[in-house]
Amino acid sequence: MTDWGLLDPGAADRAGTDDDAVLATMVEVERAMLRAWGDVLGERLDAQADALDASAVDRGALAAGVERDGVPVVSLVPALRTQLDAAGLSTDRLHLGATSQDVVDTALVLVARDALRASRASLVTAGRRLAALAHAARQSPRIARSLARHGEASTLGVLAAGWLEGVTSAIDAIDATRFPVQFGGAVGTGAAADAAAGRTTGAAELRAGLARRLGLADPGRSWHAERTPTLAIASTCAIVIAPLGRIAGDAVFLSREEVGEVRLASAGGSSAMPHKQNPVDAVAITAAAVEAPGLLQVVASAAVAGDERSAGRWHAEWSAVRRLARLARSASAAVDRLVGGLEFDAARAAAIVRGAGPAGARPDVEVLAAASDRIVDAAVARFIRTAGTEARP
Amino acid sequence: MTDWGLLDPGAADRAGTDDDAVLATMVEVERAMLRAWGDVLGERLDAQADALDASAVDRGALAAGVERDGVPVVSLVPALRTQLDAAGLSTDRLHLGATSQDVVDTALVLVARDALRASRASLVTAGRRLAALAHAARQSPRIARSLARHGEASTLGVLAAGWLEGVTSAIDAIDATRFPVQFGGAVGTGAAADAAAGRTTGAAELRAGLARRLGLADPGRSWHAERTPTLAIASTCAIVIAPLGRIAGDAVFLSREEVGEVRLASAGGSSAMPHKQNPVDAVAITAAAVEAPGLLQVVASAAVAGDERSAGRWHAEWSAVRRLARLARSASAAVDRLVGGLEFDAARAAAIVRGAGPAGARPDVEVLAAASDRIVDAAVARFIRTAGTEARP
Amino acid sequence: MTDWGLLDPGAADRAGTDDDAVLATMVEVERAMLRAWGDVLGERLDAQADALDASAVDRGALAAGVERDGVPVVSLVPALRTQLDAAGLSTDRLHLGATSQDVVDTALVLVARDALRASRASLVTAGRRLAALAHAARQSPRIARSLARHGEASTLGVLAAGWLEGVTSAIDAIDATRFPVQFGGAVGTGAAADAAAGRTTGAAELRAGLARRLGLADPGRSWHAERTPTLAIASTCAIVIAPLGRIAGDAVFLSREEVGEVRLASAGGSSAMPHKQNPVDAVAITAAAVEAPGLLQVVASAAVAGDERSAGRWHAEWSAVRRLARLARSASAAVDRLVGGLEFDAARAAAIVRGAGPAGARPDVEVLAAASDRIVDAAVARFIRTAGTEARP
Amino acid sequence: MTDWGLLDPGAADRAGTDDDAVLATMVEVERAMLRAWGDVLGERLDAQADALDASAVDRGALAAGVERDGVPVVSLVPALRTQLDAAGLSTDRLHLGATSQDVVDTALVLVARDALRASRASLVTAGRRLAALAHAARQSPRIARSLARHGEASTLGVLAAGWLEGVTSAIDAIDATRFPVQFGGAVGTGAAADAAAGRTTGAAELRAGLARRLGLADPGRSWHAERTPTLAIASTCAIVIAPLGRIAGDAVFLSREEVGEVRLASAGGSSAMPHKQNPVDAVAITAAAVEAPGLLQVVASAAVAGDERSAGRWHAEWSAVRRLARLARSASAAVDRLVGGLEFDAARAAAIVRGAGPAGARPDVEVLAAASDRIVDAAVARFIRTAGTEARP
Repeated sequence: MTDWGLLDPGAADRAGTDDDAVLATMVEVERAMLRAWGDVLGERLDAQADALDASAVDRGALAAGVERDGVPVVSLVPALRTQLDAAGLSTDRLHLGATSQDVVDTALVLVARDALRASRASLVTAGRRLAALAHAARQSPRIARSLARHGEASTLGVLAAGWLEGVTSAIDAIDATRFPVQFGGAVGTGAAADAAAGRTTGAAELRAGLARRLGLADPGRSWHAERTPTLAIASTCAIVIAPLGRIAGDAVFLSREEVGEVRLASAGGSSAMPHKQNPVDAVAITAAAVEAPGLLQVVASAAVAGDERSAGRWHAEWSAVRRLARLARSASAAVDRLVGGLEFDAARAAAIVRGAGPAGARPDVEVLAAASDRIVDAAVARFIRTAGTEARP
Repeated sequence: MTDWGLLDPGAADRAGTDDDAVLATMVEVERAMLRAWGDVLGERLDAQADALDASAVDRGALAAGVERDGVPVVSLVPALRTQLDAAGLSTDRLHLGATSQDVVDTALVLVARDALRASRASLVTAGRRLAALAHAARQSPRIARSLARHGEASTLGVLAAGWLEGVTSAIDAIDATRFPVQFGGAVGTGAAADAAAGRTTGAAELRAGLARRLGLADPGRSWHAERTPTLAIASTCAIVIAPLGRIAGDAVFLSREEVGEVRLASAGGSSAMPHKQNPVDAVAITAAAVEAPGLLQVVASAAVAGDERSAGRWHAEWSAVRRLARLARSASAAVDRLVGGLEFDAARAAAIVRGAGPAGARPDVEVLAAASDRIVDAAVARFIRTAGTEARP
Repeated sequence: MTDWGLLDPGAADRAGTDDDAVLATMVEVERAMLRAWGDVLGERLDAQADALDASAVDRGALAAGVERDGVPVVSLVPALRTQLDAAGLSTDRLHLGATSQDVVDTALVLVARDALRASRASLVTAGRRLAALAHAARQSPRIARSLARHGEASTLGVLAAGWLEGVTSAIDAIDATRFPVQFGGAVGTGAAADAAAGRTTGAAELRAGLARRLGLADPGRSWHAERTPTLAIASTCAIVIAPLGRIAGDAVFLSREEVGEVRLASAGGSSAMPHKQNPVDAVAITAAAVEAPGLLQVVASAAVAGDERSAGRWHAEWSAVRRLARLARSASAAVDRLVGGLEFDAARAAAIVRGAGPAGARPDVEVLAAASDRIVDAAVARFIRTAGTEARP
Repeated sequence: MTDWGLLDPGAADRAGTDDDAVLATMVEVERAMLRAWGDVLGERLDAQADALDASAVDRGALAAGVERDGVPVVSLVPALRTQLDAAGLSTDRLHLGATSQDVVDTALVLVARDALRASRASLVTAGRRLAALAHAARQSPRIARSLARHGEASTLGVLAAGWLEGVTSAIDAIDATRFPVQFGGAVGTGAAADAAAGRTTGAAELRAGLARRLGLADPGRSWHAERTPTLAIASTCAIVIAPLGRIAGDAVFLSREEVGEVRLASAGGSSAMPHKQNPVDAVAITAAAVEAPGLLQVVASAAVAGDERSAGRWHAEWSAVRRLARLARSASAAVDRLVGGLEFDAARAAAIVRGAGPAGARPDVEVLAAASDRIVDAAVARFIRTAGTEARP
């Protein structure tokens, strides 16, 4: 019994975050752990690592294991052991000194990191497009609105620059996020790993090696019951999604038939009205932006852990963190499509500002022109600096 | 790319709520609509209804359609039309006068209703068990705690009666919930259905017929942008889950090694500690109870709809409502297992109260005995009255 | 150190929900409890009840008591005892058999009930206005929008009828809400009250009497750790607010300068743009609608209680429930003002639909006319039936 | 009508965050803006700045202004102008080129910064205490629990070190948070400030000067509709509170009468059970930890802004951000009290581990001793490095 996307327009990009991908990542963690043990113990364990095969694991048995044990790793490890046995390889070093949480947490950090990397790539492309839009429209007047009323004159360039600032902040948030490995054994002391290594630094060496092989940070500790790392990752996802939701909302409004400052290329169909063209990318982003705050709340609630691993709160974290990562990736891809097909109608924007009465008469045209130049330049410069890219391809 | 339960111990019971089931329900709605049109138009449309086959619909194409159109129905209707064509049947009445929202909303109401029915059945079984536990232990003293400290003496019967009250409240909430059909056409006026019927009551007749055939309420209106019906259903799910979370929390604490007033049969394994027996049903319920409030929040946020169908908020509702229904069903099944295997250790409870000093000395034993009788009787009577069942099988 | 409304445009109506009012209600509960004890014990306790004076209680001492004890009642009871002493009256019956939770819970239920009653009164007035607007505009064409795009023709009457349905649903939700008294003593057994009454029915009699005197329901039990009653009240508040948020959102959009189907009388000023008129009632409602789902989530999380009174979850409930009640009352008052000053511009709406191309050409005019009549009539009839009022004053 | 703390045990420390303090901060912003304009314009405006007096502003009029205008600044500026008039000073430069949002956003950033600074100070004190506890108990065995069951042996030192890691992460999150000034004028272009300065860099100079005078960061832009700065601040508050909630939860459990590994000094009274000593600091922290995730969700929802200032979402942000700051400050003060009075009962912990059967037999004592040393040392070192303090006073 599976979910394959029937009800998820806001989370359509499931690449790298679906259960198969998470399972593959869990096996990747076990594999990296074997190699790291190889280094710590001075053994050759590459054959064992190579022999592990996520695609051959029985999904039905794993799902049943989740229901029986509350965690998939209790079933996964024997399944992998069977693979090693079948290959005539030793199983002694598999999952050595580790507990379920080491595998689940590390795998979810990897899944989130990769989703946010994909998100970042989409954001850089979208940012370039917005930079070009802003530059081209820096002297195109429009009416700026506040509290849903005409405020005073601005430019389409300032509008696009404002959107770009959100994209840049999203990239900045991703770049500031730490993705730490988790390793602590049964109750976080690493004692079993120390014992297996035969020295007091065993767990620390294994954790460092695991981090290096997976490209994660070594936090120098086990964070099994100190959940600020996952809460920080979840916050980043929400910080990525919020400004994209704003772009989508503005684009939906400004492309309304009565407004028309913006034209959107993206268009979904309707089952009742064949003539309709729906702003489907903006819809998807908005759906993600409505859902993400609730998921962030779940992770923040779950972060109030207990004991050396809490009885239920930790478990609530998994699907919320995974889904936040999926939403961030999906919304970033959708915003890339949205702005890729977004055009300004400068003539229509100018007509609105001309008809806007006292609101449109402010401020002085030359002052605005200079301010617009400055704002667009600053936004583009911050984007380039943050994204580490040229503004244009 | 699918999710099959790897990360969802709190939502393990996916029966009736997975994407295949929701799709089957959408097709069931289209089928019922055909039959209802048959009644309204005086035509025989049963052959068309019978010819629709959810299992033959291409899931990959539907998922792609969700991404393209933002809603699955835009792809689903042509796929069903193709089935009718292939059977040499007329497609004229398929989805007649309807819009995507009519199908999605009605299907999700059905999915939620069925999940809550299954939940109710589990709750009735669990309630019977709790009634028996309460009755048997009505004179077994224990210390009642408040603010995590010994309060004063109570009984194990009162404890079980308190849990039973929560189960009864959950059943009561389910029974008070309305499950309305949605039918309004493109923008909620039902105009296309009126036109198709050739009379001004066409849409109203079709809506009533659809409700009757699906066993749903006829709300006498279209609620396409008035989302209190879904918010009420979501609230019911949260009201079901909260008292189950309380039972799980109490059971986890009272079965701690140091306390021991309760023994749990349910036990999941550990990947690091073979000797461990984890309270896996309680863990699953707790995970659901941590997650459900966030989903309720998403539905409440999405309920602030706009236009005749909002651009993104409506879409955010789908997976949240579905998942709340899944959590309610899963948590109810888990609480049934949990209390089914739960035993009181009356001797241990008595020993604690004896050692509790001034807290244990209150209140007077005869007063407490009478109060316990009264409380247990009242809880069992309310359960029987609400559940419409005998307390014991 | 106090909050007096500086940051709360969405919660501006604090009448009946501010700390002074809640304190007065707590004292009202103690007073009603004295009178109810008078009935149970066959004593005259009216003098004691009359002697209690909320306004004379030292607020600073109470606030310090909250910080010291975690609950205000521990300080309140001695303060009231001092009042009785000063009046030369016996203090024996004050707070007899009760615990803090009995007072806090019952007071908050009363506060919520009264706020929802005030909310209901505002909703009835607003509903009458919407009914009149709907009736007057039932044949005024407009374009209905879905997914932020022109859908097909509808009427301004259908629009107002849709808003009215939301108001009716809000009234319906309030009317279906139960407001139960809480009485259970230290750990919910009522043993102390039984002992004080000298009979096994003491607590039950006191609870029934308390309910009668306060106009609350007698739930036949103590719900100290079974928090579905407060969660249900919180859900009602959210169900009230959501459709008001929808009205506000629609009104804000439709009164945009470029659209102009709606004109709003309400107007707040700007510190930077003297020419601006902000839709301040709609802003207040929207702010409430953005905040309410988060508060509902808090109450739902807190409802997963533990022990016979949980160490922190119960405490988190208080301000969330109170604030939800305040938001419901404030938003209802604001929607009353909003629709009271809302006018349709039928000519502008007609012009938009004429210019809407293929979207505006659908459906047939006569079909729409009849559908609009039917929809408006049904909405008004449901409102009258639910509100128990005439549609027009 | 005011709230003064009756219902807020989890938010008891209102210093710096109550309405009076926020109002004083708003006036501080206007004052700093005057001084910054003095620099930009080469004028002496210190007399004007000095003449502004928050305490003399009519609170009732401000509260009425919030209801009328949706924002307090529209009333505040004329009130301040009257103060200047009364002093015979020019009002020309007051609020020059600014809009309400510049004042509200900057004031709330200041309020949050100061609350988080106070929080940090409490956390450093608490951290020192935890470091001392961890060091002293590094060789005191206890049973570590996972999923609410005995896992394997650990030490009380490792337990305290785990709590310390959470405190250190909280400090780290505060130190990584940016507190930017907001200045953009009516619609974020700064055009009015440019015009007032008579040069194109006017707004940028004013913003930089304002930042310098208030000790805030200059973000180089206006973030009026790009709300990631407030969302990041809100996330920090939640990241601070979550690990404190974990400490409180562990302390509550471990100080249960049946467990007794921990003794708490803090104790609140009960209105029904004079013998009881409630863990009131832990209760307060837990209440904050239950509430904070919901407030974070509100800020994340509000961050999906629209237009150049959104009609309601921005307004929903104010009280949520303020309350998160208050909760962070209150919870930090409470955790300082909690751990200040927390003692380990090493004998009791050792007795539990001795009785724990196979769970207690693992791991090897010497391995655990070395691991405990390493973990405590690492935690203390990270705390010292992060907090920039000695571990012991």
